[in-house]
Amino acid sequence: MARPKPLSGFPEFLPEERIVEQTVLDTLRETFELHGFANIETRAVEPLAQLSRKGEITKEVYVVRRLHADEADKDELGLHFDLTVPLARWVLEHSGSLQFPFRRYQIQKVWRGERPQEGRYREFTQADIDILGQGSLAAHHDVEAPLVMLEALERLHERIGLPPVLMHVNNRKLSEGFYRGLGVEDTLAVLQIVDKYDKIGAQATAELLVSELGLSAEAADKCVQLATIRSDDTGFVDQVRALQVTDELLDEGLRELTTLVEEANKRVPGRICADLSIARGLDYYTGCVYETELVGFESMGSISSGGRYDSLASDGRTSYPGVGISLGVTRLLGPLLARKQFVVSRPVPTCVLVAVDSEQTRDQALDVAAALRARGIPTEVAPKADKYGKQIRHADRRGIPFVWFGPVIGEVKDIRSGDQQPADAGDWMPDEADLHPHVLPAE
Amino acid sequence: MARPKPLSGFPEFLPEERIVEQTVLDTLRETFELHGFANIETRAVEPLAQLSRKGEITKEVYVVRRLHADEADKDELGLHFDLTVPLARWVLEHSGSLQFPFRRYQIQKVWRGERPQEGRYREFTQADIDILGQGSLAAHHDVEAPLVMLEALERLHERIGLPPVLMHVNNRKLSEGFYRGLGVEDTLAVLQIVDKYDKIGAQATAELLVSELGLSAEAADKCVQLATIRSDDTGFVDQVRALQVTDELLDEGLRELTTLVEEANKRVPGRICADLSIARGLDYYTGCVYETELVGFESMGSISSGGRYDSLASDGRTSYPGVGISLGVTRLLGPLLARKQFVVSRPVPTCVLVAVDSEQTRDQALDVAAALRARGIPTEVAPKADKYGKQIRHADRRGIPFVWFGPVIGEVKDIRSGDQQPADAGDWMPDEADLHPHVLPAE
Repeated sequence: MARPKPLSGFPEFLPEERIVEQTVLDTLRETFELHGFANIETRAVEPLAQLSRKGEITKEVYVVRRLHADEADKDELGLHFDLTVPLARWVLEHSGSLQFPFRRYQIQKVWRGERPQEGRYREFTQADIDILGQGSLAAHHDVEAPLVMLEALERLHERIGLPPVLMHVNNRKLSEGFYRGLGVEDTLAVLQIVDKYDKIGAQATAELLVSELGLSAEAADKCVQLATIRSDDTGFVDQVRALQVTDELLDEGLRELTTLVEEANKRVPGRICADLSIARGLDYYTGCVYETELVGFESMGSISSGGRYDSLASDGRTSYPGVGISLGVTRLLGPLLARKQFVVSRPVPTCVLVAVDSEQTRDQALDVAAALRARGIPTEVAPKADKYGKQIRHADRRGIPFVWFGPVIGEVKDIRSGDQQPADAGDWMPDEADLHPHVLPAE
Repeated sequence: MARPKPLSGFPEFLPEERIVEQTVLDTLRETFELHGFANIETRAVEPLAQLSRKGEITKEVYVVRRLHADEADKDELGLHFDLTVPLARWVLEHSGSLQFPFRRYQIQKVWRGERPQEGRYREFTQADIDILGQGSLAAHHDVEAPLVMLEALERLHERIGLPPVLMHVNNRKLSEGFYRGLGVEDTLAVLQIVDKYDKIGAQATAELLVSELGLSAEAADKCVQLATIRSDDTGFVDQVRALQVTDELLDEGLRELTTLVEEANKRVPGRICADLSIARGLDYYTGCVYETELVGFESMGSISSGGRYDSLASDGRTSYPGVGISLGVTRLLGPLLARKQFVVSRPVPTCVLVAVDSEQTRDQALDVAAALRARGIPTEVAPKADKYGKQIRHADRRGIPFVWFGPVIGEVKDIRSGDQQPADAGDWMPDEADLHPHVLPAE
């Protein structure tokens, strides 16, 4: 076989990069479980019909078919493109076995046939948390879900030097109530135009609102002014009030957003801002919406987004409202790894290489390794009874910090310092920092 | 949406079943890393041409294609059906960045379009370890790889009551050398017929060897006798010698198998037997071969198989010999979970539910939860400020063992015993056994 080439859009990590990813996934799992989220995995495929919303497949779906399928074999399957559609299906399938509000996290690969570019992949890992109610779901969960994700991201900032994040939050009730208070009926149409504000600017947005939706110049101007409001505390309330629009739904949205910003500033200070330009496109959000930027890497776009749905799933009789937020793990790590933002202490789990005197005494080396592993120290035995110098170089090339010589009561050498000491494999321990590979920020 | 039905062959676990699976995966990872195996993941798809061996696609491959692909879009991709083919491709792609012998583990889903039945799935998780050399790989790795898997399975036996295993091992050199010593040239043809021994019996096997391959009745009889040899120690050597066949390759095979059985009996006593009927079908093994049965569940077939390849991958100039063994995680757990072989202490990670007096004091409950989580105690806040009785029932239905009442210096109730004590969320700890859900054997 000639040397294979990578497939564009299907990133694969080297072992040391995988250690960074694994550290991130472990931290997410730890945080989500601390908050009582249960883990599930769903199958990679869904019936094609399920991968659509309102009958239309808007995403670039991969169709899956057995190579030896009969013509009659009509099972039309597709790879899931997110973890929300499978969750909705899974909850309906298992609703009888679940307790509500149901809290789950799910960390899996998803596939999209999009044009590959930096941060856009065809196969990538997502980590989602969602809270689902049966019939109803209290508004305080809209505060809870993004704070769990912020806590996870903050832990990653502290542990491995992930750049800090800034979560931009808004509330659909606030925007829609505001437009309603201005006398607009088709509030969704306004939202769609205001969503372009970042790209086309204030003037063009206002003009579109007038020309396409027939808003008065004054109303259009207020819609644009609303979208410019941004504050890292509850200051946005006074700024909205200054626009002198009143509406009950607007009040409810203001209250909900106030609670979210206050609670976030208490629990994870400095990581949130109310940003009334956030619309989250055409997704069917009905309350809070979230987008998250990595500070210093804003060009990467949102790494973690979500919001509140009034009906995430429905079987016709019962509706399941939900709130959730998704982290694009590959999308986050791909660009950071490519820019060498992290250093991994070593690319292998191995802490100790046990040297082998001669193939006749390999069994003695295996005894040493077993004694070390029994106490949780990752250990390998040298592949070949070479000269000690060669065995030390083998450890060095693999990044293994220690080499053991002789039997269980023998000697251990830190090959970084050259320091060699008598040691008993039944009680010797390396420094905590050397036991497992760990991740640090570069520099 | 009507209530969706499961897709045959695509198993999905409920949260408590996922806890069992996660415990198994954690134990595998721990064991593999203790032995210095580095983790990688490969993309789910390979070019279709790569999913074949010698040009033929023997497995039921799923083809993957973008729904909106152009006619011109000729990227023929398929989902991988194992983790060995992707490893071979990956190693060739990255050989310049790797140190050899390269030790990797890989735990991922694979897909096969087979007819679904118990223990046979269309989507399932495999856990593989492999050791690859560049140009050459010492024979002691053929002993090492199966012992690492046995150690993992033994740890699962001790921790969660996985039934004990029995690994059946053989060596291709032994069989082929034996046939060669009998004067047979097409040793592979003999192997293919002897592989049917379990199904068709001794007499039919001997007859086939005579009628199809032209062996003498005496030689055919010896081939059959070889396949009947089984011993849980090195007794097989004398039984083979008693058949009075001599060959150098046979001697080498006997030596390798002896070392494996001796070392296994030393490191993981009672879990291995030499079984000279094991042929592992048509796979391109060239040395040791392994198959593993779950004791008491032999009808499930082999849950963990592998062996030695002289050339796992090759770029034409350099050959990469390898030895590996794969555990069928879903294949192992699917039938055991269906038979309720395990009990999970609770289906949620949550250890403590913090009761809420009234929605006005929810923030106080959030403070308690934050204090508990800061010390690693998975905690949820009650979704609703109901009467305490209702909040306790909510915890009970979710399997949460403790309910907290009042502020950080408050009271905690073990709802199983009814015992309620004053406690400080800044220092209270549950019993170690209650901190996280755990898995026990049923009964």
